[in-house]
Amino acid sequence: MAEAYVEALRGIVPDERLRVDLAERYSYSFDASFGEYLPDVVVRPDSDEEVSEIVKLANEYNVPVYPRGSATSLSGGPLPVHGGIVLDMSQFKHKLEIDKENMIAIVSPGVLTSDIHEAAAEYGLFYPPDPSSAHVSTIGGNILENSSGPKGLKYGTTKEYVIGMNVVTPTGERVRTGGRTVKNVTGFDLTRLIVGSEGMLGIVTEVTLRLIPEVKARKTMLATFETSVDCGRAITNVLSKGILPAAMEFMDNACIRAVEHFKPVGLPVDAGALLILEVDGHPYSVDDEMKEASEVCESAGAMTVEVAETEEQRANIWKSRKMVSPAVTEMGPTKISEDATVPRGKIPDMMERLAEIREKYNLNLVVFGHAGDGNLHPNIITDKRNTEEMKRAEDAVSEIFEAAVELGGTLSGEHGIGTLKAPYMVMEYGEAGVELMKTIKAAWDPNNILNPGKMFAENGQTKVELT
Amino acid sequence: MAEAYVEALRGIVPDERLRVDLAERYSYSFDASFGEYLPDVVVRPDSDEEVSEIVKLANEYNVPVYPRGSATSLSGGPLPVHGGIVLDMSQFKHKLEIDKENMIAIVSPGVLTSDIHEAAAEYGLFYPPDPSSAHVSTIGGNILENSSGPKGLKYGTTKEYVIGMNVVTPTGERVRTGGRTVKNVTGFDLTRLIVGSEGMLGIVTEVTLRLIPEVKARKTMLATFETSVDCGRAITNVLSKGILPAAMEFMDNACIRAVEHFKPVGLPVDAGALLILEVDGHPYSVDDEMKEASEVCESAGAMTVEVAETEEQRANIWKSRKMVSPAVTEMGPTKISEDATVPRGKIPDMMERLAEIREKYNLNLVVFGHAGDGNLHPNIITDKRNTEEMKRAEDAVSEIFEAAVELGGTLSGEHGIGTLKAPYMVMEYGEAGVELMKTIKAAWDPNNILNPGKMFAENGQTKVELT
Repeated sequence: MAEAYVEALRGIVPDERLRVDLAERYSYSFDASFGEYLPDVVVRPDSDEEVSEIVKLANEYNVPVYPRGSATSLSGGPLPVHGGIVLDMSQFKHKLEIDKENMIAIVSPGVLTSDIHEAAAEYGLFYPPDPSSAHVSTIGGNILENSSGPKGLKYGTTKEYVIGMNVVTPTGERVRTGGRTVKNVTGFDLTRLIVGSEGMLGIVTEVTLRLIPEVKARKTMLATFETSVDCGRAITNVLSKGILPAAMEFMDNACIRAVEHFKPVGLPVDAGALLILEVDGHPYSVDDEMKEASEVCESAGAMTVEVAETEEQRANIWKSRKMVSPAVTEMGPTKISEDATVPRGKIPDMMERLAEIREKYNLNLVVFGHAGDGNLHPNIITDKRNTEEMKRAEDAVSEIFEAAVELGGTLSGEHGIGTLKAPYMVMEYGEAGVELMKTIKAAWDPNNILNPGKMFAENGQTKVELT
Repeated sequence: MAEAYVEALRGIVPDERLRVDLAERYSYSFDASFGEYLPDVVVRPDSDEEVSEIVKLANEYNVPVYPRGSATSLSGGPLPVHGGIVLDMSQFKHKLEIDKENMIAIVSPGVLTSDIHEAAAEYGLFYPPDPSSAHVSTIGGNILENSSGPKGLKYGTTKEYVIGMNVVTPTGERVRTGGRTVKNVTGFDLTRLIVGSEGMLGIVTEVTLRLIPEVKARKTMLATFETSVDCGRAITNVLSKGILPAAMEFMDNACIRAVEHFKPVGLPVDAGALLILEVDGHPYSVDDEMKEASEVCESAGAMTVEVAETEEQRANIWKSRKMVSPAVTEMGPTKISEDATVPRGKIPDMMERLAEIREKYNLNLVVFGHAGDGNLHPNIITDKRNTEEMKRAEDAVSEIFEAAVELGGTLSGEHGIGTLKAPYMVMEYGEAGVELMKTIKAAWDPNNILNPGKMFAENGQTKVELT
């Protein structure tokens, strides 16, 4: 069976872009989350036509298709859970055009997001979404997961910048959604439906991104607090002053200690919480807003407030934030990285719930994240060979999801649902809400070809399964 | 037949909110666009439960349901084209809560958009979308049409501010979409699918809007140009300087003359184009950016550049813009108000095409609009009793749509498709694209109950029909 359709695939893509050897298939069997699933074949299309023909053939042979960028997904987005075809889109990257006059970028899906940042900057333009994986992850992957990074509060998420796409539908049709204008209400908004659809509703083959003028100046501050409640109050008070920071990054005590243990940068290991706050905009306003933000932090009881005066000082502040990921990785072989998001005012409550969960399950749990938009990243460091601890981690993750939803938040701010959070969809949206989503999937993809096994729980799965 | 279901409706809503008399039905038979269609019955629900029960009953009796806010639609959105039930949502307006800490508003669908502006301002917050009908149109109508007004370029459209909704589905289920956080990637984005769906995919019964801190300062300029090409160059050059104005409103010569004829405010009637530019933000940056924008306009060959130094001067500048609508209305009994939108760099080409169309069809065509996002509002002033001129107007409107799409733009920037532009959907998105939309509609609304006869052309309609 597999042989027949693989043979047919050879009529669409040349041999050098079609691989069936075990080593190659194995290297496409995992992503940055959990589980390994061997596909039958890996193909690397490099045109709309090829993608369309592959998907049509997959429908004909009833074989699943798993689109994949750089596979940095933390929720299982690209995992080929039912085998079949992996569509490696990472080499589909010929186009990166900046249209300065209309302030848009037209980009192939395999282009790295950081390359878009650089290309835009050459024209004095700015593409704000900036997932921490931006230097390795593809724009196609970012779009299908709607992963966004620290600037969501001020600049919105990836979705707010995608204004048009070329898409291959689950039945292999080639369609154009949206256009080249910010304002567009012609028909249902398929663009925004497909952004964040985790590759289940279409494969993006070209995207039109809105850009904005480059930021003229930015200023960065690092403040430490005795407790995360103090830190939370500072965050709220800064916003109350009418300041909209470009970033407000939060780290808890465990995270601060992890960074200091990994590479001492002089962070106070006794601080309950740390806040990195950046304002950007016109040089005059940036100075004034930073002054005000510092005062707010001091009034909220900050232990220390340090405003970077030079570019070097600014880089140093961000270094402590960028060291979080390697520091956490060093703490143990397995990292469970969550992104439960709560309304900003509920951050202190969520921090309390996370502390309780850490204690109850006796786990190494550190918390950092994008405080401005309530997008926390609780990370559990464990070892997947330790099955007893992994069971506790599963229970802890379930409780994290429950806490986020109970506090009026959501399962996922930017990592997606994938395989990991599928059992919790009904908890957040109810049967009727999930049914509406399934209805769209079934209507567009009658043979369930595109990325099956994601978002909707299969086989009666009712809780997180990491093992 | 009608009697049976109307009788059943009486079991859901009390008599004072259910009307079958001809006078009442007649007053719900039109909107601000074209055509008159008499419904069987008008009901004014005021709870989710009632809306849900009405829709379930409509499915049972196979009767169409036409949700309606203030009926300011310019594309036929609320017209009851197949009779049935008009659901007047304008009295469903109990809730208007501002949550200052989380910077969100929670609002009932019948609340007027300008009331949200005022309520937010009381808390130092700002809701940027501002359709010119904001003081009479409901937030529910704004959301279902995604109408946005002048601030799209800097602040995005209505869609960018809707983060959660309570919705009654076309089969009468009550669901919650999105949530209270800006970042949310849990499942398909039903919120953004329903925003702009013209009431065909669901009836909004509560909405959660994201707010931003109030703008601290704004400054406004009026510049006039000999030609719209000069004006277009000024617009592009302002953006190239890294300035993102809150508004850039454009008027052509015919529009300037219309305003001056209506009420002389001292606009130069020989100017080819007029630009109202407003910057907002921090007081320091506003002064600096306005200085730079003025210089850009002068370099681009502006005839006059006038920066408002007082609030009174600022109000005067905006007065000339706000007089466009009454001035145009005075020019003739029938106004055809379009909103074809093109990539900003194509505004001069579009202006040229509009001048050709004006000449070819010998029509009174004035153009104004939101230049920053390419959202033009060509208005044809005519008299619907003059059937010969109306025929020419129909052809002219068709050519306007064709020109917009040919220039890489879209049929509608914010007015919606409704009855008026339905025949042109395929021109913009192709058969396959429109089919994807129809598939969602059919899957969610198997009996075609919610607002049927909109967006998708019926009965072989192939062009604009105004008569």
